Amino acid sequence: MTAVKGNAIVAQSGGPTTVINSSMCGVVEEARKHKCIQKTYGAVNGILGVLKEEIFDFGKEKPQDVAALRRAPAAAAGSCRYKLKALDKSRVDYERILEVFKAHEIRYFFYAGGNDSMDTADKVSKLAAEMKYDLLVMGVPKTIDNDLAYTDHCPGFGSVAKYVATAAMEAGRDTDALYTSDTCTVLETMGRNAGWIAAATGVAHRSPEDAPHLVYVPEAPFSVEKFVADVKAVLKEFGRCFIAASEGIQDDKGRYVAEMGGTFAKDAFGHQQLGGVAETLRQIVESQVGVKCRSNKLGTCQRNGMHFASLTDVNEAYMVGQAAVRHAVAGTTGFMVTLLREKGPRYKCTTGLAKLLDVANAEKKVPRDWINPQGNHITKKLRDYVSPLMHGEAPIDIGDDGLPVFVRLKRKPIPKKCGEWAKG
Amino acid sequence: MTAVKGNAIVAQSGGPTTVINSSMCGVVEEARKHKCIQKTYGAVNGILGVLKEEIFDFGKEKPQDVAALRRAPAAAAGSCRYKLKALDKSRVDYERILEVFKAHEIRYFFYAGGNDSMDTADKVSKLAAEMKYDLLVMGVPKTIDNDLAYTDHCPGFGSVAKYVATAAMEAGRDTDALYTSDTCTVLETMGRNAGWIAAATGVAHRSPEDAPHLVYVPEAPFSVEKFVADVKAVLKEFGRCFIAASEGIQDDKGRYVAEMGGTFAKDAFGHQQLGGVAETLRQIVESQVGVKCRSNKLGTCQRNGMHFASLTDVNEAYMVGQAAVRHAVAGTTGFMVTLLREKGPRYKCTTGLAKLLDVANAEKKVPRDWINPQGNHITKKLRDYVSPLMHGEAPIDIGDDGLPVFVRLKRKPIPKKCGEWAKG
Repeated sequence: MTAVKGNAIVAQSGGPTTVINSSMCGVVEEARKHKCIQKTYGAVNGILGVLKEEIFDFGKEKPQDVAALRRAPAAAAGSCRYKLKALDKSRVDYERILEVFKAHEIRYFFYAGGNDSMDTADKVSKLAAEMKYDLLVMGVPKTIDNDLAYTDHCPGFGSVAKYVATAAMEAGRDTDALYTSDTCTVLETMGRNAGWIAAATGVAHRSPEDAPHLVYVPEAPFSVEKFVADVKAVLKEFGRCFIAASEGIQDDKGRYVAEMGGTFAKDAFGHQQLGGVAETLRQIVESQVGVKCRSNKLGTCQRNGMHFASLTDVNEAYMVGQAAVRHAVAGTTGFMVTLLREKGPRYKCTTGLAKLLDVANAEKKVPRDWINPQGNHITKKLRDYVSPLMHGEAPIDIGDDGLPVFVRLKRKPIPKKCGEWAKG
Repeated sequence: MTAVKGNAIVAQSGGPTTVINSSMCGVVEEARKHKCIQKTYGAVNGILGVLKEEIFDFGKEKPQDVAALRRAPAAAAGSCRYKLKALDKSRVDYERILEVFKAHEIRYFFYAGGNDSMDTADKVSKLAAEMKYDLLVMGVPKTIDNDLAYTDHCPGFGSVAKYVATAAMEAGRDTDALYTSDTCTVLETMGRNAGWIAAATGVAHRSPEDAPHLVYVPEAPFSVEKFVADVKAVLKEFGRCFIAASEGIQDDKGRYVAEMGGTFAKDAFGHQQLGGVAETLRQIVESQVGVKCRSNKLGTCQRNGMHFASLTDVNEAYMVGQAAVRHAVAGTTGFMVTLLREKGPRYKCTTGLAKLLDVANAEKKVPRDWINPQGNHITKKLRDYVSPLMHGEAPIDIGDDGLPVFVRLKRKPIPKKCGEWAKG
């Protein structure tokens, strides 16, 4: 079989991760090795860059800058949250994507993202086939939420896990030290539907006295009464309590706990105030347990912690980028690269493939037996799963000011060839 | 002059820092070198440990555990926020401290803390002199707030500066990547009265496009109107805006901005809701600028970030601990060790001394000309001051699970010799 000749494009989608640039680096550096791929482009701000024809050429970036993507967090090509309409509702955006691809002789489309992005990639792939346009579409898994099915885990998760678990460990030592006045601390992590990130903090709990003493995830229904009892029990034993909670924890009726604190609250501007999970739990502890409680909300810091990223994660992210290119060049299309954990005592991971459509339609939550029966901590199964993903520390560059140095791409736009985009 | 013979005690006070244990390590390891110091004790939970006679012997800890304090955040001996009454109001607590010191033949008192602690240490020192009890009292500076006078900077500040500036840089890249939907981000830092920590994030702003684009500190009065205009101006130029703000920013009438959001707000439990600065500024941006805004609140994580601590800070913290012992052994009492920055192009720091009482009665804020005239960013003077303090990365131990390993002291209590403490 002869490989399809043409240009390639990489787009980054959705919330950034610590290692999505490492995957992009893997794509770009691998693409250079294949003569059938002439130019490798980047889409500025994800699929929006394709739709708006805002595209840059990785060949015009310094090779050392491309290499440095492996050590830079967030999405150096830019990302977006633009959601395309369902194909049966409107074909306009999909046709526009193919118009731009054709204009720039793009035959390889590498799309790094989560479920929604895999759905988009699948539809682009199918429309191209329908229109008899040779296009090889490969999905590159990316999400801190770790909720993609058909892959053992997602690039981005290992680093956020390492970040939040370390934060729990460090802030936990603060609570240990100051419990005579600041008795409880709540750490809020990301994770709207799946509790993988909050669960990862549980690994820091190496011994009973270690933080976090309590871990709450959306997979186990949350009850205020139970929570208050949990905190009181921990206080009785250790005199202090460190709590980790997913932003998406819900009660047994599916109501977000983050929204409870705001039920009766209006802020200074008349809006209902959604204080977030940490703030809500803090209030519950102070009012119903009667001790001082602090709240920490790591927010977007947690998904960009390149200064202490997991080397395993960074390397695997690069590997999935490389694999996407190799498969595409070999003629594979309509698949996402997956990570396969090999059986055996030592952690080892290789890549596999899953259909884009299958990935798009599934969501992987934390198995119930990876959370304890009480629904307030993890079990050994989760610990054994997460620990190897956090292994190793990725090297970074440090400037004279003692702070990290992260590359910025020049992203010089290539000339446009199509008309203005008429939004679908 | 013959050195006073007896035991020594170290106590840690107030909010933990990344390096207060490094100072304690410096005290304990230096004390071993001086024969006049027989045993070195630790007070469990700061001055409370002295008052309650909860004391442990560092000689019973493994030497490698003591050495590992240099790589452990927070306060391994335990800390507290107990505030002694003014000496002219009640001598009870001060006399109790001396009762416990006498019972355990403690002749050296090393107190690591901020202004209040230096005040306590000073009073203990004076009362001892009055009672003709030979006691050498040395203050060890410790505060992330960097607000102690008579010292160029405070151990603990360099590491929190490195942590928050890196967080601004990393989360800033997130905003760069996702600005088409998540346009603004607010990062809240600690600092109730002095803006040093928020100001340190400004160092991450190496070029105009780099986060943070706006920095607000308590030293420059905050105005909502001005803030909205600032954000709009940045959005016009860059399409995104990253804001760093001290928890203690105030308007021109001295009202905390963190409390503005809660003026009319009651939470689900009927309490006034103080959402914090990040949350308040987020609401202002969303309601008055009209773009989506995220909020990150690092909380106690920022003052315990040993995984990316400043090596300069860790080493200087150790050095002030050592210096405190050397001075005490030489007969100095009633002083705090200071850090002196030597003049010259290369950063170099030695130690000096300041009277405890002088330190207790002063507070060092960010000089107005280290903040720009608009009051929304730092100037080169602040950058030049902070950068060297963040230099180098302190080594830490990492476990098989990919997470840091921080030592825990055994803190086995020594037998009590005094009666119960009757609170002063």
